[in-house]
Amino acid sequence: LDYLSGVHSMPDPRQREALIQLEVSMQTGGQMVLTDAEQQLDSLLFKMKQREMQGAAFPPAMHFFKARQLIRNSPIFSLLQKMPKGGALHVHDFSVVDVEWLVKNVTYRPHCYMCFTKDQSIRFIFSSQWPKPLPICSSWFLLEDLRAKTTNTTELDNSIMGNLTLFTDQDPETAYPSQDVVWDVFEQSFLALMGLVTYAPVFRDYYHQSLAQFYMDNVMYLELRALLPEVYELDGSTHDRAWTLKTYEEVTREFTAEHPDFYGAKIIFTIHRGVNVSTMTGVVEEAMKLQRNFPDIMAGFDLVGREDRGKPLWYFRDALSIPVERGVTLPFFFHAGETDREGTEVDQNLLDALLFNTSRIGHGFALTRHPVAKELSQKRGVAIEVCPISNQVMMLVNDMRNHPAAALMSENHPLVISSDDPAMFGASGLSYDFYEAFVGFGGLRSNLGSLKQLAINSIRYSSLTPKQQEKVLAMWQIRWNKFVSENAF
Amino acid sequence: LDYLSGVHSMPDPRQREALIQLEVSMQTGGQMVLTDAEQQLDSLLFKMKQREMQGAAFPPAMHFFKARQLIRNSPIFSLLQKMPKGGALHVHDFSVVDVEWLVKNVTYRPHCYMCFTKDQSIRFIFSSQWPKPLPICSSWFLLEDLRAKTTNTTELDNSIMGNLTLFTDQDPETAYPSQDVVWDVFEQSFLALMGLVTYAPVFRDYYHQSLAQFYMDNVMYLELRALLPEVYELDGSTHDRAWTLKTYEEVTREFTAEHPDFYGAKIIFTIHRGVNVSTMTGVVEEAMKLQRNFPDIMAGFDLVGREDRGKPLWYFRDALSIPVERGVTLPFFFHAGETDREGTEVDQNLLDALLFNTSRIGHGFALTRHPVAKELSQKRGVAIEVCPISNQVMMLVNDMRNHPAAALMSENHPLVISSDDPAMFGASGLSYDFYEAFVGFGGLRSNLGSLKQLAINSIRYSSLTPKQQEKVLAMWQIRWNKFVSENAF
Ligand SMILES: [Zn+2]
Ligand SMILES: [Zn+2]
Repeated sequence: LDYLSGVHSMPDPRQREALIQLEVSMQTGGQMVLTDAEQQLDSLLFKMKQREMQGAAFPPAMHFFKARQLIRNSPIFSLLQKMPKGGALHVHDFSVVDVEWLVKNVTYRPHCYMCFTKDQSIRFIFSSQWPKPLPICSSWFLLEDLRAKTTNTTELDNSIMGNLTLFTDQDPETAYPSQDVVWDVFEQSFLALMGLVTYAPVFRDYYHQSLAQFYMDNVMYLELRALLPEVYELDGSTHDRAWTLKTYEEVTREFTAEHPDFYGAKIIFTIHRGVNVSTMTGVVEEAMKLQRNFPDIMAGFDLVGREDRGKPLWYFRDALSIPVERGVTLPFFFHAGETDREGTEVDQNLLDALLFNTSRIGHGFALTRHPVAKELSQKRGVAIEVCPISNQVMMLVNDMRNHPAAALMSENHPLVISSDDPAMFGASGLSYDFYEAFVGFGGLRSNLGSLKQLAINSIRYSSLTPKQQEKVLAMWQIRWNKFVSENAF
Repeated sequence: LDYLSGVHSMPDPRQREALIQLEVSMQTGGQMVLTDAEQQLDSLLFKMKQREMQGAAFPPAMHFFKARQLIRNSPIFSLLQKMPKGGALHVHDFSVVDVEWLVKNVTYRPHCYMCFTKDQSIRFIFSSQWPKPLPICSSWFLLEDLRAKTTNTTELDNSIMGNLTLFTDQDPETAYPSQDVVWDVFEQSFLALMGLVTYAPVFRDYYHQSLAQFYMDNVMYLELRALLPEVYELDGSTHDRAWTLKTYEEVTREFTAEHPDFYGAKIIFTIHRGVNVSTMTGVVEEAMKLQRNFPDIMAGFDLVGREDRGKPLWYFRDALSIPVERGVTLPFFFHAGETDREGTEVDQNLLDALLFNTSRIGHGFALTRHPVAKELSQKRGVAIEVCPISNQVMMLVNDMRNHPAAALMSENHPLVISSDDPAMFGASGLSYDFYEAFVGFGGLRSNLGSLKQLAINSIRYSSLTPKQQEKVLAMWQIRWNKFVSENAF
């Protein structure tokens, strides 16, 4: 950049063009060399994006709940749905499948009971006998009976659905006036669906359905953050975490057998950050054991729950240091920097995640305000798992163009795009989040190379072994070529 | 950062602390060494900020129109008002003085006429005779007559005030649903007040009052972007730009004579970017002449008006190259990157401003998405003039914590804080914008050192000569010491 000084005439247009191209080449995918067919598709995409930016309403500038229908009508979105996107690396176990499936399929199964909590949420249980009442709930109703007595079951079903997702047709700013409120409703919805999805037969089906939803969205690999909760049978007996992990492994094997162009899945065992130190210690030890016993399906360990309310990582430093002190491998995939409380203890999680040698960072929303953590993440290739719609719904950002990942993408910081809890947000798969990243963060300049890079990143930054990565990349490349040749015209 | 690899135990707490301190030291003012008294004031500020961040409503997360009263009640704001802030480097000529002064003082002067435009704005003129009607306006009313006939003059005055500012007690999102609307109203308000402020006696008083408003806010130097419009007398005769510039010089001299602790002002001549190439060429030539004839008061040249609607800088490249081609000095202070239309032609202004060797950059809101421009600005010490409230009111950003300058401040990018059009936004001086920067961008970590650095930056990045800067800095230091000793307890 030095050769610019000492100029005594109009800036040289060729030099200017070179600098523009330099900047373009620095973005995510900026170094990607495109084939003729890819270049054709790219010009098509460019025109689509120009049109999208000239429209009266620009979806990335709007709340996703209001933008969703516009996005569904967007030709860019249709392309992104068809595009092979690689892997989904930041998704939570019970927020993947459409709540409609939960209501229309799961709650219609026999032995399904429901009760109403004081704070207007609901709870479920499957049981062969009439279940014992919960302290915070009304007495149980057998859903079959309730539906038989109800004149309008559609209304009942809709109201159940409303309890299982944050998505609403209301004005989102009115429905969720603050981060505290949206997190409370999030946690209530989560508790509501727990009784449904931890019933063993549903648990299997839900996970199968999760893989199917990503598969249908042209995602070929999944790293699922899973609580490995107690799963129960109709008679009230329960299974331990090893059983749950084994079940994940079995269903994954079934699914990939049925769909040979789906590569598979791994599980990141997660614990709520609200636990105390001794529980955390025990859980870390169990995680090490599970990692040893299930090396193929288990990818590592993470903490979940709102960072702003829980203890910071450093609070659990003794527990989190056990694996490295014993020389045992337990990869970390810490959520960190999902906060706007700048400079507080919680805002320290980003640096601490890196000091604990995290493999990736969940969200990293605060990264651009932490130059040391940012440089460490960049130099070590610790990818940020960016979940645009999640950050918007949980009220960290309003207009996606102001999402910090826009700056990260402009300098090709290691990152992947993911969807966190798509069913909670009324999204599904990865395509909605890819849309926000491609149209919202990337502006007019991000191109097919950026999309290709994002897909490749999702394989390169996965916890698959190098050999596995080569295999997935080869599978992905075939599908990518097909996608390009079918859509470039 | 390399010594971190290969660790096989818990992260070393001292190393962790060192990295945290490294990050703190990288922010704006992070290298500043504080005296004992400054450290005392700093701990006080820290506690105030902690309290502010724990409050139910966090002003930097809110629209300024809603936050203003909360800010006024903030003890941090009271301190910032008292703090000597150095210079205001990005302020426009006719949006400085409270509209209340315009209505209560100026419109009560004799010979003041007003008319009503079709799109519900107003226009003014002072005239010894009944003025000729304007094509877009109703017939003229002498305000004296109008007030005599009105039962409720307060209501009339309030309605006039409402026409001269964007500030409103209404919900700002309802009043200004889009950038287009808010810019339209902005331009109408501007046209409304033009007739008042370009009347020669008012022009002098308005500028005197502008200096007074900054002086009262403990600002000691001003670089005013000025249109140098035709100024008129009561008989309809008009003055040229040289007269206007001379008047600025005279009034500045008067004001500094009255207030020896105010250093002075310089003028950046601005032209609306809506003009055509041949007009621009003529204006650049006139600017060169004015720069030669008024070297003490004139600082340089800039274009104004909404970037998204006007032509980009590159469109005017021939005109803007005239000074450098003739070897004539005409410093540029270009507005650039005040846009969220990423990747468009207008978004190219940032790089082009730097290629045209701009002395500073107005706004630079898009800078973090332009790594090449960002590096050039950093290496060359081309400061970004950050105007937080302006960017929020003009709808580039919602929550100040997501303003790109938060990231720039975390890495001590050359920048100053300014207020753009304070009277338009219901603000005044620099203190409100300092509040947004200090509390909103900086989070808990930014400290008294950051504030000190921002004040020093406003002198170091001014267009004063090095010798003048030393003098202002010495004046500022005395006031700073007084401020610290009076408030540290
Ligand atoms: Zn998550
Ligand atoms: Zn401006």
